[in-house]
Amino acid sequence: MKQKGKLYLIPNTLGSDDLNTILPQGNFDIIKSIQTFIVEDLRTARRFLSKAGHAGNIDQLEFYVLNEHTNTSEISDYLETIKLGKDMGLLSDAGVPCVADPGAAIVTLAQNAGIQVVPLVGPSSILLGLMASGFNGQNFAFVGYLPKEKNERVKRIKELETRVYKEDQTQLFIETPYRNNQMFESLLTQCNPETKICVACDISLPSEYIVTHQVQDWKKRKAKPDLHKRNTLFLIYK
Amino acid sequence: MKQKGKLYLIPNTLGSDDLNTILPQGNFDIIKSIQTFIVEDLRTARRFLSKAGHAGNIDQLEFYVLNEHTNTSEISDYLETIKLGKDMGLLSDAGVPCVADPGAAIVTLAQNAGIQVVPLVGPSSILLGLMASGFNGQNFAFVGYLPKEKNERVKRIKELETRVYKEDQTQLFIETPYRNNQMFESLLTQCNPETKICVACDISLPSEYIVTHQVQDWKKRKAKPDLHKRNTLFLIYK
Repeated sequence: MKQKGKLYLIPNTLGSDDLNTILPQGNFDIIKSIQTFIVEDLRTARRFLSKAGHAGNIDQLEFYVLNEHTNTSEISDYLETIKLGKDMGLLSDAGVPCVADPGAAIVTLAQNAGIQVVPLVGPSSILLGLMASGFNGQNFAFVGYLPKEKNERVKRIKELETRVYKEDQTQLFIETPYRNNQMFESLLTQCNPETKICVACDISLPSEYIVTHQVQDWKKRKAKPDLHKRNTLFLIYK
Repeated sequence: MKQKGKLYLIPNTLGSDDLNTILPQGNFDIIKSIQTFIVEDLRTARRFLSKAGHAGNIDQLEFYVLNEHTNTSEISDYLETIKLGKDMGLLSDAGVPCVADPGAAIVTLAQNAGIQVVPLVGPSSILLGLMASGFNGQNFAFVGYLPKEKNERVKRIKELETRVYKEDQTQLFIETPYRNNQMFESLLTQCNPETKICVACDISLPSEYIVTHQVQDWKKRKAKPDLHKRNTLFLIYK
């Protein structure tokens, strides 16, 4: 029986063009050895791979597309290349694959097929935001998006805040970028005055902003950050 | 008023001696510019910093120790250097600072003092394990260590499994390395046959092992991984 290839999980930057500053050299060595990639967006992927060591031979690479529009029944063939003995790369558009990012479905298939999955180091806004928040990193939960509907959202914020106090668990979540300012206002309105909110925005970019205050202190501040259309992670803790 | 310095959060490898493969070049550039570090263990820190670009001038660096034996009342002076305008580095012994690692206390102080905190990219076993598990990365919780006492532990495992099914939330946790095999056995005994367990061991090392199976499939397998004294992350999901 032929030896199977491996599935490498390849992080991207969080928007920075300076790959060498943000990603380890080991990633580039692996990327250069791979010819077949599963990607979210072809154009973004080609740009990344060109900078990461495939400049000049992009047209010889093979691509499969996996994003929120991909039907999961289509992806079962994606791993054939690996079964034939070649390594493949699952490439993220921003940050690390599979965490707040499509891609987990293909890793599930790979695990089911007994394929070795190798995660590479890269920037995750969740992890970087948690590190810099000063919040509990021994117990934390990332819960994705909160509900859009107002009453549902208020209820969810209260639930998460309860978990902070009852379980000593940091709660992390995100919002669609154009609704970030409203989310921040909802948190200031709904949370206890003593609850701490960390706003982590544009992580790893020159405009990076990661600041923690209690709700009552955020309210007193005249200048609040403008989060509109900026990638932002919200964290609450006590 | 003097401009304050920044607090850089500096990851280490997860045991690999090959820093260049695992850590981004940008980290080394920053490390070389810093003279004052907060560290868990002096010897480990000196070894890391020597490899990371401070070879030859280790004796000129200034160190503060912060680990589980440090009294939190002592650390309030640690940030004086930053207040005088110089950058400092908070260095982890393994993985990233503040996540399943001491250090969050100093970041809380920094945030309270209005000091800019800059998290650098590095390997986190939690994040890498989650990526490679194939489990839900849109909703997950890391809960640290489970209780040692048997009945308490069984209860906690059931609670976490309930959260997997009720909230669609991946649960991640760790164990003292010499009790890993017992933990794995407890999970196989206590969890539903259909529940999936991912065992993520020696992440980023040559002996890396990250494998997902349903409980019923793990039980059928004759050869189970020996996790004794190996750094292991356990993940459960449906």
